[in-house]
This record gives sequence, C-alpha cells and structure tokens, in this order.
Amino acid sequence: MSSVTVVRQNHVGTGRQAIRLDMTVSLDGFVVGPQDSTEEPMGIGGFRLFNWLDHRHDPGPNGQVFAESAATRAVIAGRRTYEHANRWHGDHHDGVPVFVLTHHVPEEPPPGSVRYATEVHACAAQARAAAGDSDVLVLGAGVAQALLRAGELDEMELHVVPVLLGQGRRLFDHLPAERTELELTRELNAADTDPARRVLHLRYRIQRPQSTQDAGAS
Amino acid sequence: MSSVTVVRQNHVGTGRQAIRLDMTVSLDGFVVGPQDSTEEPMGIGGFRLFNWLDHRHDPGPNGQVFAESAATRAVIAGRRTYEHANRWHGDHHDGVPVFVLTHHVPEEPPPGSVRYATEVHACAAQARAAAGDSDVLVLGAGVAQALLRAGELDEMELHVVPVLLGQGRRLFDHLPAERTELELTRELNAADTDPARRVLHLRYRIQRPQSTQDAGAS
Repeated sequence: MSSVTVVRQNHVGTGRQAIRLDMTVSLDGFVVGPQDSTEEPMGIGGFRLFNWLDHRHDPGPNGQVFAESAATRAVIAGRRTYEHANRWHGDHHDGVPVFVLTHHVPEEPPPGSVRYATEVHACAAQARAAAGDSDVLVLGAGVAQALLRAGELDEMELHVVPVLLGQGRRLFDHLPAERTELELTRELNAADTDPARRVLHLRYRIQRPQSTQDAGAS
Repeated sequence: MSSVTVVRQNHVGTGRQAIRLDMTVSLDGFVVGPQDSTEEPMGIGGFRLFNWLDHRHDPGPNGQVFAESAATRAVIAGRRTYEHANRWHGDHHDGVPVFVLTHHVPEEPPPGSVRYATEVHACAAQARAAAGDSDVLVLGAGVAQALLRAGELDEMELHVVPVLLGQGRRLFDHLPAERTELELTRELNAADTDPARRVLHLRYRIQRPQSTQDAGAS
C-alpha cells in the first residue's frame, strides 16, 4: 500500500492538505443499491460497483487512485459506513486515525485507532491536524453531505462505474439549493479489457468564494 | 408496454441509427434547478448548466457534440421540456419531426413538425422510422426515464457540468431497482479557458441481454 502518486496540485504553494471524498458511484449517482443493511452492506446488487477494485494493485489508473487513498494519513467516516464495514476492526489502513462522525456516540470505547466525533467542524479540524501534511480520506455519503454543507470538503475523487442501479442510496442528496462550483482537476479512464471492471476516475476540487479561502480549520 | 428489453446494440455497425438522449447535467445529477416552471424553465440557478453552449459553434468538443445533436433527423421530447421551451414554435431544428410523448394530448393541433404520442414503444418506432439512417435526439428527463424503462433508449450523451446545484429535477429518477450495464464509448473534455464554460461530454451505450437481441421494434 505504498504511495507513488499522491497528488496535491491544488495545494502547490500553500502546503495545505485536502479533505478528499473517495467514493465509487454508479452513473445514476448511487453508492449502494436498494435495501442496504448490516447483513447486505452494499444493498441489492451494489457490489457491482466494486468490481474495479479487483485491479486496485495493478499498474495504471486503478492502482494509482487506490495507492493515493492508501497514502492518506487520516480518515473521516460516516457512522453507517463504519458499521457496515464492521468498524474495520479498528484499523482502516496503516493504523491512521479514523474519525467517525456520528450523532450518538456508542457507549463502548472505540476500537483501535477510531475516535468518535459529533460536530462536523471539530471532526474536520482534528482529522486535518492528525494527517499533518498528508491528505484526509472521506468515506460515506452521509458524512460527505455533512462536510459539503459545512464547507469542510476540499476535493472529491469519484469512481464512476458505467452502470445504472436504478435505486439505492444517493451520494448527492439532502443538500441545500445552493450552487457549488467545482473544478475538474483530473480524469483517468481505466479502460479495462473486461467491461465489468471499467471505471472513470474523476477528481474535482471544490471552489469557494475567495473571501473565505483563508479560513482554514487546521 | 409489450416487450421490456428490445435490443439494439446489434445495430452497431449495421448502419442503423441510435435513439440517443442528449442532456446537460450537474455533477450531482440535476437537469434543472429547484422550482422550475414555465416562467423559470431551468429552475433557480439552472441556466448555469448551459454556459458551455455559448461555445457550441466553436471548433473542438463543444462544437462537435452540438453539431451531432443538430444532425439528428427526429426528436423525441417530453411534455414538460416541450412546454418549457415554448414548443420550439413548432420547429426544434431543420424542421425534423418532433415526437412529444405525453399522457394527455392537447386539444389544439400541434404546431409545425410536432406530433403527439401517448405510447412509448410506438413513439420510439415512429421516431426511428422518421429518422431513416440518422439518429434520434431525446430531450427531457421524464421521457428519458420512460424510454429507459421501456428498453427503447440506445445511447446517452451527457454533458457533465462541474457544479453542484444541490436540488432540482434529477435526470435519473423513478427507475426500477434493476441493473443496466453501460459502455462508455466516448469522453470529450472541453477544458475551456473559462472555468464557467468547462464541461465533460460522456457518451454511453446501453447494453442489453444477449438473449433478447433479435426483438427489434421498428
């Protein structure tokens, strides 16, 4: 899981790291299929989205983006994602701190490198501090929406799978009717020979008004 | 609603045309902003999506995709799109037949080259016949969903604008919980010098089961 290609072209000159969402979505915008549960964490048919990860250690775009996610030094996860992933047994990758944003902190202490957070700005600030000069990985649709609403998300790396699921849990939902400008900073087309493993990796930087650019939370 | 899975990818390479959706969407999947109406047909802030069309006659990707849509020889439009566009005064482009799919046919006769249709398969068949060897242009989220559900859509050309609208009318909605495999057949990144006019043009072909390949409907 070593990193070769950590990308920070947006931070050139500032040294600031990115809080970056990393999610696989269907073209119709779903991150899991319908009726997801702890027993069926990806919903009906939702594991189709993860076929491309079979090639996550290969050279090329899939290996590159996976290595980048593994090079992050802190994780922010939503509660549902965390629970559906069996709490990663306390270690998402390399023992980096995992900040789980939740409304209700569990009574038992968190496992491994997990910490619970209930306030989105504080959660983001702690993750930024923990990551040092590295990036923060964000996992989960609900927490992505919370960070977007709070203005704490810097980038999105979306792995767009050429499939329609029809129904499920949407990545972009429950957002206010406000325009957010983005910049497409990278696109990598993983044109696998196997149609079932093809995927388009799109990286967007979230633009914010100049006047608030210096209001860093780290 | 006879056959559910009419198949037409077997027409690739045979000179037969495609029924192709052509829609501009925000990254969060909206084709218009919130509160769209006849007075505000793109909803609040929704005209942001059409900035790239300022360069529709330029050389390069924007000009190419616009020329392709203008080269289609029949149009299928949804009723809302049709009304919000002032019925195109009876002529969408070059006087080609415009088939408006609607639940309730207006009492007055349709203007210009417009015809009304109430049944999706018949509508698709008439448009295919009218287009001859050329492609059919599909406009509107509702009609796209109807054609998708009916298995009558062959391709999608999506112009993905780097913006989140937060709310509005979704392109992919009201679909059954069924998986539809796609093939990304083309991507054109119109990296305009003006950030407000950048757009990613993605063309997908809709894949259907091999077993129903011979059930043409035109």
